[in-house]
Amino acid sequence: LDKDATRKGLGEVGERSIIEIIKRYLDVMPTMPIPFGDDVSAVAIEGEHVAVLKTDMLVGKTDVPDGMNLQHAARKAVVMNISDFAAKGVQPEALLVSLGLPRMISTKDVEEIAEGLNAGSREYDAYVVGGDTSEASDLVIAVSLYGTAQKSQLMLRSGAKAGDVVAVTGFFGKPAAGLRILSGECLVKQEFCELLLDSVLTPRARLKEGLALAASGTISSSIDSSDGLAWSLHELGTMSNVGFLIDRVPVAEEAKQFAENCGVDVFELVLHGGEEYELVVTVKPELWQEAEAAAESVGGRLLPIGKVTQEKRVFLKQNDEKRIIEPRGWEHFKSKP
Amino acid sequence: LDKDATRKGLGEVGERSIIEIIKRYLDVMPTMPIPFGDDVSAVAIEGEHVAVLKTDMLVGKTDVPDGMNLQHAARKAVVMNISDFAAKGVQPEALLVSLGLPRMISTKDVEEIAEGLNAGSREYDAYVVGGDTSEASDLVIAVSLYGTAQKSQLMLRSGAKAGDVVAVTGFFGKPAAGLRILSGECLVKQEFCELLLDSVLTPRARLKEGLALAASGTISSSIDSSDGLAWSLHELGTMSNVGFLIDRVPVAEEAKQFAENCGVDVFELVLHGGEEYELVVTVKPELWQEAEAAAESVGGRLLPIGKVTQEKRVFLKQNDEKRIIEPRGWEHFKSKP
Repeated sequence: LDKDATRKGLGEVGERSIIEIIKRYLDVMPTMPIPFGDDVSAVAIEGEHVAVLKTDMLVGKTDVPDGMNLQHAARKAVVMNISDFAAKGVQPEALLVSLGLPRMISTKDVEEIAEGLNAGSREYDAYVVGGDTSEASDLVIAVSLYGTAQKSQLMLRSGAKAGDVVAVTGFFGKPAAGLRILSGECLVKQEFCELLLDSVLTPRARLKEGLALAASGTISSSIDSSDGLAWSLHELGTMSNVGFLIDRVPVAEEAKQFAENCGVDVFELVLHGGEEYELVVTVKPELWQEAEAAAESVGGRLLPIGKVTQEKRVFLKQNDEKRIIEPRGWEHFKSKP
Repeated sequence: LDKDATRKGLGEVGERSIIEIIKRYLDVMPTMPIPFGDDVSAVAIEGEHVAVLKTDMLVGKTDVPDGMNLQHAARKAVVMNISDFAAKGVQPEALLVSLGLPRMISTKDVEEIAEGLNAGSREYDAYVVGGDTSEASDLVIAVSLYGTAQKSQLMLRSGAKAGDVVAVTGFFGKPAAGLRILSGECLVKQEFCELLLDSVLTPRARLKEGLALAASGTISSSIDSSDGLAWSLHELGTMSNVGFLIDRVPVAEEAKQFAENCGVDVFELVLHGGEEYELVVTVKPELWQEAEAAAESVGGRLLPIGKVTQEKRVFLKQNDEKRIIEPRGWEHFKSKP
């Protein structure tokens, strides 16, 4: 591997720049139904019918915090992929898993991984249909997902228009608090602790909500929030060529209490925490009630948090004060695990 | 990670047992068009139309020999997946790539990887349509492949019948010799050296041949040979419930010369070498000429190497002597890189 000091190392450039570099070298499929840069990829099958594809890799060192067992880790590898399908409104049908396993792990560990993979898939009505194992220095679980959809029903990152309502499917901040508990940064009382840890160890994709929202035809743009709410808003903004004015920050009550208890900035947890699996969507105001009803019809909810703006920046408005929400969250290579 | 000494480590059990352990924990998709254990997976789209899926991971430590640069490695990660599509007779359409990159590699290295991914894909008329990058301790390139096919045209591992001809698409042994040159085990004269190294650094999938053979409808079973000819025969035998009597070993002239030069057993190179990308197929005797013509129609060839037998073992017959060909080849965890 080239380590020439005159060239930039990946720690300096970050995951997003790496993806830009790679894209420069790729010939673009002429009939790609979803452009590069969205949560999933797609290939035309016939007419409006498209195959939807996604791959995302879980790596032991960066994605598996201390205190997370292998069954949790394997389930998480599945759920983080399904969350992207949820954001596009696509039912996952089949998973393939490419496993990189360190030589010193035991067959019992392999059983735990297999249990987690199966559990994560079956929760969302999908099946593992194949895969491959290799030896690797660190645990690597690369999941790839397959499903089909009607192209017109896909909820893309582009499509938000100034004036649209921006909304989320739940409250934020619990996983960021849970991660701090796992790393021993702060102790909280038992009942809280379990709930916050559960949000990290057993994340849940908003698939039901995503499918219902897509079917309702009310959504102008959509993204999941695995890199944090701030990043998701910035990504939606970039792909839709808009900005946001957030005036109701969706703070989870448990995150608020954790923040007060532990002297942490609650907005840091809520906006920049990452590991969140809520959907962030935009809706035309006149379709709001219909969108809300769609989410509620499957036991979910849709919380309005602000408006889409023409100005291409993301602002937080509180008590007549406006401050910028920075594009900051979890980023591979730049962030320290 | 669990390192309890009373449990077996992966080095003892090997890749194939690991896959068996995992399968025990997986719910099986009720309508799976291809059973577990074949080269690829499939999901029904509509009627006879199926989506074909495959994932395989290249890991720096075990799959990238010294002397192979990152562009070669990335191209190889693509080709080893396409080879499995070739063996089933399926045109790959789209690739997703999950990249695990060590933090110390440079942006120049990333460019090389991207070039290799694109080159490998375009050679076989496929496109990279998406992916993901993560930080990892070692280079990891997990490719997943998508294409579609008619179920009845898929060439599966099962289906060989006693009396069928077993044949291959080319001569074996060059990559095994090339790997020995890369590791500095033996020196050979320039012209040979380049050809043998090329077979390791720039492997080629037999996609044209695979597509033509599938279209001809003459093939009773098929597999690629990435783990070596011996393993491929044993796998075909197991999935088809048959054995083989091999009487014409497909030795590449260059491998023979290398073996003589360097005092290596040529059968070791040819049968157990691995990193080969020829197809191994079986054909009903009455369809032989048709199958041969199909391979030749795309500039390829089909070399008969023996017969399918009822006895479920793999024999090599030479000058009226019969010896067993052992199920031995490259296996992750058990084999030493």
